[in-house]
Formats: sequence, structure tokens, C-alpha cells
Amino acid sequence: MTEKTDHKTTRRGFLASGIAVGGAVASGRAAVAGEAEITEMQPWRRNLGDPVNNAPYGTPSQFEADVLRRPVAWLTPDATTAVSFTPLHALDGTITPNGLCFERHHGGVAQVDPEKYRLMINGLVDRPLIFTLQDLLRFPRENRTYFLECAANSGMEWRGVQMDGVQFTHGMIHNVEYTGVPLRYLLEEAGVQTAGKWLLAEGGDASGMSRSIPMEKALEDCLIAFKMNGEALRAEQGYPVRLVVPGWEGNMWVKWLRRLEVGDMPWHHREETSKYSDLMADGRTRRFTWEMDAKSVITTPSPQAPVLHGKGPMVLSGLAWSGRGSIPRVDVTLDGGINWHQARMDGPELDKSLRRFYYDFNWDGTALLLQSRAHDSTGYVQPTKDALRSLRGVNSNYHNNGIQTWHLGKDGRVRNVEVT
Amino acid sequence: MTEKTDHKTTRRGFLASGIAVGGAVASGRAAVAGEAEITEMQPWRRNLGDPVNNAPYGTPSQFEADVLRRPVAWLTPDATTAVSFTPLHALDGTITPNGLCFERHHGGVAQVDPEKYRLMINGLVDRPLIFTLQDLLRFPRENRTYFLECAANSGMEWRGVQMDGVQFTHGMIHNVEYTGVPLRYLLEEAGVQTAGKWLLAEGGDASGMSRSIPMEKALEDCLIAFKMNGEALRAEQGYPVRLVVPGWEGNMWVKWLRRLEVGDMPWHHREETSKYSDLMADGRTRRFTWEMDAKSVITTPSPQAPVLHGKGPMVLSGLAWSGRGSIPRVDVTLDGGINWHQARMDGPELDKSLRRFYYDFNWDGTALLLQSRAHDSTGYVQPTKDALRSLRGVNSNYHNNGIQTWHLGKDGRVRNVEVT
Repeated sequence: MTEKTDHKTTRRGFLASGIAVGGAVASGRAAVAGEAEITEMQPWRRNLGDPVNNAPYGTPSQFEADVLRRPVAWLTPDATTAVSFTPLHALDGTITPNGLCFERHHGGVAQVDPEKYRLMINGLVDRPLIFTLQDLLRFPRENRTYFLECAANSGMEWRGVQMDGVQFTHGMIHNVEYTGVPLRYLLEEAGVQTAGKWLLAEGGDASGMSRSIPMEKALEDCLIAFKMNGEALRAEQGYPVRLVVPGWEGNMWVKWLRRLEVGDMPWHHREETSKYSDLMADGRTRRFTWEMDAKSVITTPSPQAPVLHGKGPMVLSGLAWSGRGSIPRVDVTLDGGINWHQARMDGPELDKSLRRFYYDFNWDGTALLLQSRAHDSTGYVQPTKDALRSLRGVNSNYHNNGIQTWHLGKDGRVRNVEVT
Repeated sequence: MTEKTDHKTTRRGFLASGIAVGGAVASGRAAVAGEAEITEMQPWRRNLGDPVNNAPYGTPSQFEADVLRRPVAWLTPDATTAVSFTPLHALDGTITPNGLCFERHHGGVAQVDPEKYRLMINGLVDRPLIFTLQDLLRFPRENRTYFLECAANSGMEWRGVQMDGVQFTHGMIHNVEYTGVPLRYLLEEAGVQTAGKWLLAEGGDASGMSRSIPMEKALEDCLIAFKMNGEALRAEQGYPVRLVVPGWEGNMWVKWLRRLEVGDMPWHHREETSKYSDLMADGRTRRFTWEMDAKSVITTPSPQAPVLHGKGPMVLSGLAWSGRGSIPRVDVTLDGGINWHQARMDGPELDKSLRRFYYDFNWDGTALLLQSRAHDSTGYVQPTKDALRSLRGVNSNYHNNGIQTWHLGKDGRVRNVEVT
């Protein structure tokens, strides 16, 4: 209810533009004629529909069969160490439906029996503990909505691959309401010793994913989560229990969580040395680059979501997020960065969560260069890809939060391009 | 982050209660023994899991196969005029996953082709209009999270049927993030004439669902919604377009919306005369009882979600909502209403949206009578069922927002009972 006066396309705006927003700006008679036509063409008005509980667990409309997670076959060596991407071009709002949350696995999707699930806390603690799922359900729990972004999201853009769609350039992200126990409650129960400054989180799948997390972060806002968007975690998201590390790279959100070890220094395991570290132009490596920098992208129009309705009133829709806080502001340009306009920000300004923005304008039918630029609550402004490249080179696959450019053609088609 | 100090079961609380929260409060050695045991029992650590994109549209874990919408066969005459219920006992947080949102149909689930979808506005308007789906996508849109509750939710409780589970007593409700165009933008486009004080919303399915809505509500906060929880509406929720009428009874949220007629008085159609009106004890009928009164219910423990872990620390979890505003407070009693305790309120206090509450306590193992009582932002307090019956009699099936009682037995089983 906060944005009532902020949109640019009021009734007067629509009519002044000379566009018939309806199929026809109809007289009363035209509407009646339309009515007869509609009756003829719409069989669902004359026949009973499907019975209730046709799908006890519901599925999308048959007309949305192409809105799916999709992998990129050549990107990874095999299907158990691969990634599928969230179809951002077909979504709006901020919640990602569980069935469309991207997947990234290193040893396939483990199918963990909740009766046999165990979580161990060991290392520099007064009382090593093993928890069953029932044990975890006895601790006070909280609900928080957070984005999870893979550190490699947009990674192919570093060297200009220009994947053909926002699903593939930015689709390694989702945004979900988690239910879980604050990790600090479990650590308090075990009794972290004074020397305990780090935590190793280890997954229960075949890949044995493990990451080092500073104790300060573990105590601040991490969750031991067992539900996403109200229901049990999905298997591909770590059923029955995953670690939630708000704002930090997705690889640290260990799935099928089996063990938390308290130590006095980081472990320097595979996933924080050879992987998930950023090779710079000078041969040095950035390590422990945990926080996801502020970023945004226009989701429609985009290469998979061309403009079908011709010139005139148009809604541009996009997403912005920051691992360091919230998103108070996003700017949008139609001309590749010459002129910037403040976007209309939708919904509450949540911490470390996706925020939806819109820009409502009249398209004059000419070719446009569309970009968005996020500002986060720390004052940080999303940089251009070239600015990032000049700082970090092009050796890395990680932490590319550069501004994305879409070329909207006169025919309504959209292409992934770069503006230099 | 707002509830850090509010929970009652701190580490000291757990330990003071003498309960071993872990499978064992283990010594270091016991933890090591546990480790060997875990390795033996958990095959998912030794074998690769399922490949990525095994389910391009994901589905729940195989271990959650009983978390489903369920109908009650004897309740309605046939499967196209029936209801299935949301499994509230298995959910937490506030978002309802799209696949678990309850269904209520009067002519089955229409499968509407989005290419052939049309929305007409006619009646007392300056310009009758017909919109395609593409037309609607050109208006500024918003995202809002609202509950939708059927007026008949908990209806069987009026006369004490005591259905055996919160899924069936309170499961005609869901809570979803909607993306849609404010209805007032479309009405402004059509130009509502001075005499236009009412709106008829008509569905495109075989039941021809139609309801009268005051123009004031239509202009205030109604949405023409096309997405739920980020993705396209599900067919059973009105794909491709439904009306959102925040806080008002679900029957008015017309699905497969095909027509909006502006008039100078209500239409007195079937669904607001013989149905969705409340027969009082004296034979008179309450009509146009649109707003859903403040209500709450404990979702766990509940008959379908017994206590499996024995006495000691326990989390009681529940939901509260109001059609008139937000929920600042919920009270919980363990003894059938003799002593009340303030619940721990979770998450943001949203308008006309579900709010999750918790009560964390030590169960002494004795039988309890569990109840919750919602307070809404207008100061209204949820009444007892008997108070409602004394006001309205027991002839109606609608608008039962009375306090629900669960009996928790010593064995952890839960039954639906009444306290008089």
C-alpha cells in the first residue's frame, strides 16, 4: 500500500499515450459482441472441470510446462556434479517456489531417511552431542526469508560468454522462507570452549562437502533449517536438515548437514582452497570471500521473455539483493547507462532477501539498452563488469556482481550484450 | 532477529530440566562410538545420489509422501463440488507451498488456455473493456502476502463434530505471496460512473461463480492476481487470473476471473443468498458477512501431530490471522483457559496475513488442555465457541472463529475436545 502514488502509468497516462489497453477500447456494443465471441471460444464455461484432489500434491498448470529448472550440459562433467538453474524470467514477486529452486550438487541428491538422521557437534566443546531430528524440534525455532546465491552465479559473464537468458546468467539463486533453530542454541547446549573460534560444517552426502565458518557468524544469524516455504526441505536442498548462512555464498549452506566441529582455526578444505576461491590477474588468490556483494538484474524483459505486446505501456521487472544488508534503492537505465531512473521498490525492505523492483514506462518502439544497478543499505553501489574486471581480472568464476545489459530490439526480442 | 531474548528455553533452561537433548549428552568417547554407528547406518554417505534435474519441476522428499491435501468424502455431494484441506499439522512458517493450498470448487478445476483468456469490464463504466492476459501485464503490479480462508473453515465445529485433525478443522486456509495489478487501475481505465457503487465478479468456470463486492473495497486493496509464490497461479487457484479480496471470505476471491460488472446495487446471486449467508437461531439470516474475524489455532501438537519425544522441552507452534488487520498478540493456555501465557510472536506483523506464534515450555508429562487466543490490531479478541453459539446459534456453517481445544494425553496423543 506504500506505492500508490509512485507508478508512472495512471489512467491518464495510458490514454494519453493513445494505446488501447484492452483488446479494444470498446463501446457498449463492441463489448456485447466480444461476449458472444468469448462464449464460443471458451469450452471451460460449458463443461465441468477436473475433480478436487486430482493432484493431492498440486502441480503447475499444463500451460506452464516449460517453466522448469534447466541444466547446461557442457558446463559440468556429469549429472551428479552439475547445476540446474531457476527460471527467473518466468517468475515475479520474491518467493521462489520449492519446485523451481536451482540445484547444485557435488555428489548427487542424497535421499536421507529422517529416522536415521543424526547431527553431531564435536571438537572444542564441553559436551559433544548427537541430535536426532526429534531433538532439534525441541529447540525454539524461527522463520526468516533469505536469498541463497551460488558464488559462481553469473560466473560465465566474467569472460563474456553471454548466456542466452536470465535463467542461465543469474539463475543460481533462490529466495525462501526457512524454519529452523538458531545455531547458537545448539552451540550453547554443547558449550563452546574459549579457544573455539571456527566451525566446520560437514554434509552427509557422498561428496562430504565441508566448509569453515567463523564462530562470530555462526552465533550471529545461522539457522539449522528443516523447512522451506512452510513444508519440509526438498531432498535437493538438503532434506531433512541444512545449514542457513544468511548473505554468504551458497556453497557454505551445507545440505544434509551431519556434523559441526568446533576448532581454533579454519580447516582449508577442498571447497575453500582449490574451489570457491578467486584467482586474481596477478596470480594471487582471494580466499574466504564469503559475503555476496549487492547485485541486481532485470528479469523481464530478458532473452527468454521478449516483449510480445508492442510499443506503449511496459512493465520492467527485476530483482536485487545484498549479502551485507537490505536494498533501499535500484536504478534503471534504458540507454546503456547514460540516463538513470529510480525504480519503484516493491514490498518490505528485508535483510539478505530478494527485493522486487519495477520500472513502468512507455516504450517508444526503438531499440533500448536495459540495465539495473542496486544500492544496498551499507551505501555500496553495484559496479559495472568492466570495473570488476579491472580490479580482479578474468581468471575467476566467482563473485561476479556486475551490471547486466539486455538489448531490446524493435521487434521485441531481447539479447544478452555488453556495453563498454 | 527481534526475538533473541524472548524464548524461554535457554541452554540453562534445557539443562536445568535434566533432559538429555541430544540422543545422549555424550562424553567425547560416546560421540566417537556414535560416529562409527552413523557410518554403518547411513548409505547416502557411500553412494552417489540422484542426478541433477531428476525432477525439472521438483517434488517433495519421498519421506514426506503423506503430507498432502486431503478431501473428506462424505462432506460434499461429488468430486467437482468438493474441498480438499491444507495439511497445517505438517507445516511451519507462514508461506503455504502452492502444491498444498487447499481447494474448494463448485464446478471442478477449469483448465483455461491463457491465449484465449479474456477479462471484461462492463456495466456503469464510461468505456467497457476487454483485456487479454498480455494487456494486464502492462499495468503496474504489486506483491502482497495474504491469507485466504473459506467462510466455512471450522464450520463443522459449530455443532461439535470435532474432526480428527487441524487439517480438517482449520485447513481451508492458505497464505501466499500474490503478484497482481491493483483492481483500481483497471476500474480507472474503464471509468466508473458516479452511480457505480458495486462490482460483480464472475468466474469463467462451469459454476459461473459470482459475488457482489462494494466499490469501496474494490478500490481499496483488491488485486487482479496472476502469480502466487512467484510462479503462475495453479489451475485449482484460478489460472491464469483470480481476484484477490484481502481479509474477506475466500468465496469472493473469484477464480478464472472473466468479468467485472459495475452496478448501483448488489446482485443477490446464489452464492450470497442461499449460500455464504449465516442462518441465526431466530430464523433471521446474516448476509454480506465478508470479513474473516480474528482467529488462531495450534498446529503442533495436534491430533495428526502427536508428541513423539516424551516430557521435557516442547515447542508449541500455531497460526493466527485477522481479516481486519494484523496480529500483535496471541495467548496460549495449557489448562483449558484457567491460566494464559503470551506466545512468542514470530516474523513481521503483516496485514491480513498469517502470523506464526510459538510457546516454548517444559512439558511435565501430565495431560494438558491446549488452546490459543488471537488478539488483532483493532483490539478484538478471539471468542470461545460457546460465546459464538450464544450469539448466533448453531444453524450456520460459516464464520466460526472460536477457540479450539486440543487434549494432549500422557502418551503424547492429541484429541479434538471441547471445554465448557
